[in-house]
Amino acid sequence: MANYPDKVYINGKIVPHQEAQISVFDRGFLFGDGVYEVMVQIGNAFFYGKEHLDRLTSCLQKINLDFDVTTLPAEIENLLAASNLASKNCLVYMQITRGVAIRKHAFPKAITPTVIMYATPFTLPDINQKNIATVTTVDNRWHRCDIKATSLLGNVMANNQAAEQGMYESVFIRDGRVTEASHCNVFFVKDDVVYTHPADTYILDGITRQVVIQLCKDLKIEFKEEPILEENLTTMDEAFLSGTTTQIASIGKIDDHFYSLDGSVGPITKKLQQAFLELKERHKGTTITN
Amino acid sequence: MANYPDKVYINGKIVPHQEAQISVFDRGFLFGDGVYEVMVQIGNAFFYGKEHLDRLTSCLQKINLDFDVTTLPAEIENLLAASNLASKNCLVYMQITRGVAIRKHAFPKAITPTVIMYATPFTLPDINQKNIATVTTVDNRWHRCDIKATSLLGNVMANNQAAEQGMYESVFIRDGRVTEASHCNVFFVKDDVVYTHPADTYILDGITRQVVIQLCKDLKIEFKEEPILEENLTTMDEAFLSGTTTQIASIGKIDDHFYSLDGSVGPITKKLQQAFLELKERHKGTTITN
Repeated sequence: MANYPDKVYINGKIVPHQEAQISVFDRGFLFGDGVYEVMVQIGNAFFYGKEHLDRLTSCLQKINLDFDVTTLPAEIENLLAASNLASKNCLVYMQITRGVAIRKHAFPKAITPTVIMYATPFTLPDINQKNIATVTTVDNRWHRCDIKATSLLGNVMANNQAAEQGMYESVFIRDGRVTEASHCNVFFVKDDVVYTHPADTYILDGITRQVVIQLCKDLKIEFKEEPILEENLTTMDEAFLSGTTTQIASIGKIDDHFYSLDGSVGPITKKLQQAFLELKERHKGTTITN
Repeated sequence: MANYPDKVYINGKIVPHQEAQISVFDRGFLFGDGVYEVMVQIGNAFFYGKEHLDRLTSCLQKINLDFDVTTLPAEIENLLAASNLASKNCLVYMQITRGVAIRKHAFPKAITPTVIMYATPFTLPDINQKNIATVTTVDNRWHRCDIKATSLLGNVMANNQAAEQGMYESVFIRDGRVTEASHCNVFFVKDDVVYTHPADTYILDGITRQVVIQLCKDLKIEFKEEPILEENLTTMDEAFLSGTTTQIASIGKIDDHFYSLDGSVGPITKKLQQAFLELKERHKGTTITN
């Protein structure tokens, strides 16, 4: 996304992006007290739209923010129409914060949550062809990474550390174990077995992560929810990232170690990418409420 | 503070609080990508104003946010004048975020930071007479609590947990050790020795914390920067909190354990409170740039 979206939805109104403003007393601004989602429309249907909205509900509950997401699909439809993106390939960003109140740590009673959303043209490549370069970073984030919260300073600092070295992603190491990346999940392949960190409170259980696990089952690829130790990183056969916009992307390099010297993608990663492509083809046609 | 401040400073402009708005694309709102300070004016001088601004500088550096705080004292003076708070007892809140940009984790190049500030009438009591009730909470925050960042979801969730039980503060336990509280530092007294967690990356090195340490030296009270173990919480003789608006407040109760059954304040805590009061008297008259 290289430009600001044309329109932004704020609490029921759709306005030009230049006018998309919130109070400085919004707890999203003062405390990072909110959650968010990113989902992608392919043609006229959101890819795992229902799963994204379900996770939003689950994250709202985890931070005790009372908001009913069932109103959102109709609002998203209005936003897409206003943005000239109805039935077009696009990305939708949604953020819900606890709302506007005088600054005080404890949750204020009876305030209205702030909802902002925007849509921007975005077409997923059929298969993510990049061979991603990554660096390892100490995972110093909080211990509730299962919540897709907007208190993201740890994530953006880590991501920036990668960017400064010309890399795409930071792979987090916590207590000697690989957890995830700054905005992706991470998988490894060793002796035809796929490994990823279990979906506990140290990682976000990505929708694409769940899809990868299902694809492993479908393809009869052995799969283990076990963290990889930092010391074993360089002994892995393959490594890849998953994410809503990343889809499945081969990791070519981590720090000074190359998984692929010639830019080729490992056989298991390739198989999963192909299966993911077929899944996307089949999914076109489902709607957000399915 | 029961009301919104009259005026808010945003990037050089001073506006009524109802008009104090920022873009939804501010990274403070999208990522919690900012730092903040709270300081208190007593009469015509900020109490440890220079130390607060120095810490702001240090926190800005820690998150690689390039902003020169030397412009702020003059802007604060303007804000106080516009707020009818020049030379009056008040509290100033300052927040600096990385600025407005299209949403992307890595830091954008060459954007202008967002600065917001407000002042609100606030008079510190001579001595904080409250005997605070607290609960212990798992410290699941990130590992850079030395940065006074606005990514505060972990803090507000913990604070709210205390508030829901009618308590003032949550005292954090990380790996069996007391770190700090959701918006205060924590001290304990045992056999006339004062203990608090060392100022590493697991706590914020509060300005009032530093003052307490200096007062211990001045009063020849033995002081150790050592974390108290959770299992020893109930064997302590006294406990107290420190903070900019909390000053020094006796902890009367933690979970089901009472340090004080009759609302009295322990002798060491009392001595420090008295010395703190005298310090405030002496400090009236210094200016923000001293």
